[in-house]
Amino acid sequence: MSQAKITRKKQLQIVKEKHDQLPQIMTENDIECWLVFARETAANPDPVMDHVVGGDIVWESAFLFFNVNNQFKMVCLVGNFDEPAEKRKEIWDVVISYKEGITDPLRQTIKKYNPKNIALNFSEDDVVADGLSHGMFLKISKILPEYSDRFISAATLIRAIRGRKTTTEVDLITNACKITEKINNSVSSKLKIDMSETEIQQLYYDEMEKYGVIEAWQRDSCPSIDAGPDKEVGHVGPLETSFTKKGHTLHNDFGVKLEGYCSDLQRMWFFGKQEELPEELIHAFETVRDAIIKASEFIKPGLTGYSADKIARDHVISRGYDEFAHALGHQVGTHAHDGGVLLGPLWERYGDTPKGLIEEGNVFTLELHVKTKNYGVVSLEENIVVTKDGCEFHVPPVKQFIFIE
Amino acid sequence: MSQAKITRKKQLQIVKEKHDQLPQIMTENDIECWLVFARETAANPDPVMDHVVGGDIVWESAFLFFNVNNQFKMVCLVGNFDEPAEKRKEIWDVVISYKEGITDPLRQTIKKYNPKNIALNFSEDDVVADGLSHGMFLKISKILPEYSDRFISAATLIRAIRGRKTTTEVDLITNACKITEKINNSVSSKLKIDMSETEIQQLYYDEMEKYGVIEAWQRDSCPSIDAGPDKEVGHVGPLETSFTKKGHTLHNDFGVKLEGYCSDLQRMWFFGKQEELPEELIHAFETVRDAIIKASEFIKPGLTGYSADKIARDHVISRGYDEFAHALGHQVGTHAHDGGVLLGPLWERYGDTPKGLIEEGNVFTLELHVKTKNYGVVSLEENIVVTKDGCEFHVPPVKQFIFIE
Repeated sequence: MSQAKITRKKQLQIVKEKHDQLPQIMTENDIECWLVFARETAANPDPVMDHVVGGDIVWESAFLFFNVNNQFKMVCLVGNFDEPAEKRKEIWDVVISYKEGITDPLRQTIKKYNPKNIALNFSEDDVVADGLSHGMFLKISKILPEYSDRFISAATLIRAIRGRKTTTEVDLITNACKITEKINNSVSSKLKIDMSETEIQQLYYDEMEKYGVIEAWQRDSCPSIDAGPDKEVGHVGPLETSFTKKGHTLHNDFGVKLEGYCSDLQRMWFFGKQEELPEELIHAFETVRDAIIKASEFIKPGLTGYSADKIARDHVISRGYDEFAHALGHQVGTHAHDGGVLLGPLWERYGDTPKGLIEEGNVFTLELHVKTKNYGVVSLEENIVVTKDGCEFHVPPVKQFIFIE
Repeated sequence: MSQAKITRKKQLQIVKEKHDQLPQIMTENDIECWLVFARETAANPDPVMDHVVGGDIVWESAFLFFNVNNQFKMVCLVGNFDEPAEKRKEIWDVVISYKEGITDPLRQTIKKYNPKNIALNFSEDDVVADGLSHGMFLKISKILPEYSDRFISAATLIRAIRGRKTTTEVDLITNACKITEKINNSVSSKLKIDMSETEIQQLYYDEMEKYGVIEAWQRDSCPSIDAGPDKEVGHVGPLETSFTKKGHTLHNDFGVKLEGYCSDLQRMWFFGKQEELPEELIHAFETVRDAIIKASEFIKPGLTGYSADKIARDHVISRGYDEFAHALGHQVGTHAHDGGVLLGPLWERYGDTPKGLIEEGNVFTLELHVKTKNYGVVSLEENIVVTKDGCEFHVPPVKQFIFIE
């Protein structure tokens, strides 16, 4: 029985928790109206629907959150066939439905509350705050032409609503991490030399089926399996032609989705005894492990994302390695890459996301790798949740290679 | 073992078939460059990625299809970590990768081919042609400012590429329909009076697990199960408090996803003997069934979507019923609602989609309902593929109620 999908009851519970967070977040960001404008979300989902609507809709729909004159109102405006399902949720102050077109009821609703700004789901930098398609943006601009100068980006709001995990959400991610580790342990007990990467991936698939979980990202590379020194770094899947060998390492990048929430961990094995571990691998492993620990000791609410990245990056460089060509950490939630503030360097492709501030309740990966001359890449990844004055690991961070003798 | 996801091999086969269709489709639509601009597609997918890329990417990526001076070139431009996976696919003429930002290589590529127009994935009316988010639109406008007056919508191109199913795709949809009918038959043999709607839904879930398929749309209402005369029409899930009764009908709306492709069928049961069927239900059932048959006899390539809708709608009205408050048919493919030309009336909420022309290879639902005074709604749905000069049903259309004695 699959446990990959969240139960209806728990999803609506999280939606209610998120609705409870909204007045505060809207006030902080000086937003009077947040408009989630969506259609056919099964084909083209807005990632924030899971958090504040809970389920798909078919026709053009407007989910309106008003925070005007200290009054908070949630209005759901959907096609007539979507109305019964929304009413049954009992999460909206008002449910309005239409038959032929959304224009009139939407215009009336906006007119009634007359908000000074209308936040829409677009962002150049943050994929999960960018759920409004360009066609839908053109459409809403035509429906509300006299309000289009009030349109602003909802990115800061969405960052907060997704990023500030509730206890229900943190528990789900912890559970996903625990199952990930159980599966890693199960597979460890079956590892031998001369196994192909694809064979090892199949061991993971078998265990995932046993636990009723699914992959946290694209199945081809979840888990990614990298045996030996010659594997390219990147989002490349396991190869049939690459085998575990005595004296070589094995690396994986693996996460599961359990009840809608993800884990994202990297682990490493060595085929041999601990005393056979070459100095080069010891040095590399300690570098990566300690960079993660140093970053975790540094992280607390209020710091910028790039400042945390720098701690790990500087450590790696100080130990004589090239810096890693990616960010130290991304947020984890309903997606393995959950958007929002990034623990990353100030590179073009990360836009403004590393400049954001770390907040309590944020869940991040801490991940990096270094390249060794003779043994390939050494890479680890942990998941942490930011607490009031620091952070905690969801499952204990690794201290050493797992040895397969 | 789940068969819900398409195998890597078959997906790349379809991608290649779609790439083969592209030069012709681009020429027909006078498009010199089609730019699929995407990032983090696991979190915020562009629905057309499955058809022309085949798999997710993490960093900002540009998939460029050029059809300039009768030369067709496919250029894949991705972040360095996504490069190995794209190279391994062996579907691109050129794979280019970047580390820090996509701007320079993307500008250089556009400059090299200098296309007179650049089609982007946005559409006000067609959800699956609207995969470009507004934030990404703003971004590409900044990356290519001097080309922004060449931006056009790729909607007509996407309609064709998604709509013209290849034989591989048609076979997958037929297989999904066949399994749907097998599951309907299995469940039929277990139906009794005094079963709740949720109990019946569970029978479906059990069978879906047996066949290794998943729901074609939101699980809550896939299948939808409607017992007796009092159920509201719409996307409402089964109720624990609604039971099958002697002399009542049962209705479902059910589709499965098999190897990435969907079915979408509606069937009806009557609890009693055929000779006990009331005249009112006979009249309603024949109306719905015959409206579908009439539409199917009418449909062929070159007709408008609304003209096919009108055949069924007029038939229903001529038999003394209110017209149905939805379209006669939507396309089916990787999504149950697959976008493109719609067999629908010219209502605001359908935009221009019913004005499009039906093409060979299109897969449509034919679905409608009528309301009876004493027995609730009678509703059926079939799936058809448009052939050279007509259309064919994927599985035989229903002729009568399934009787549960």
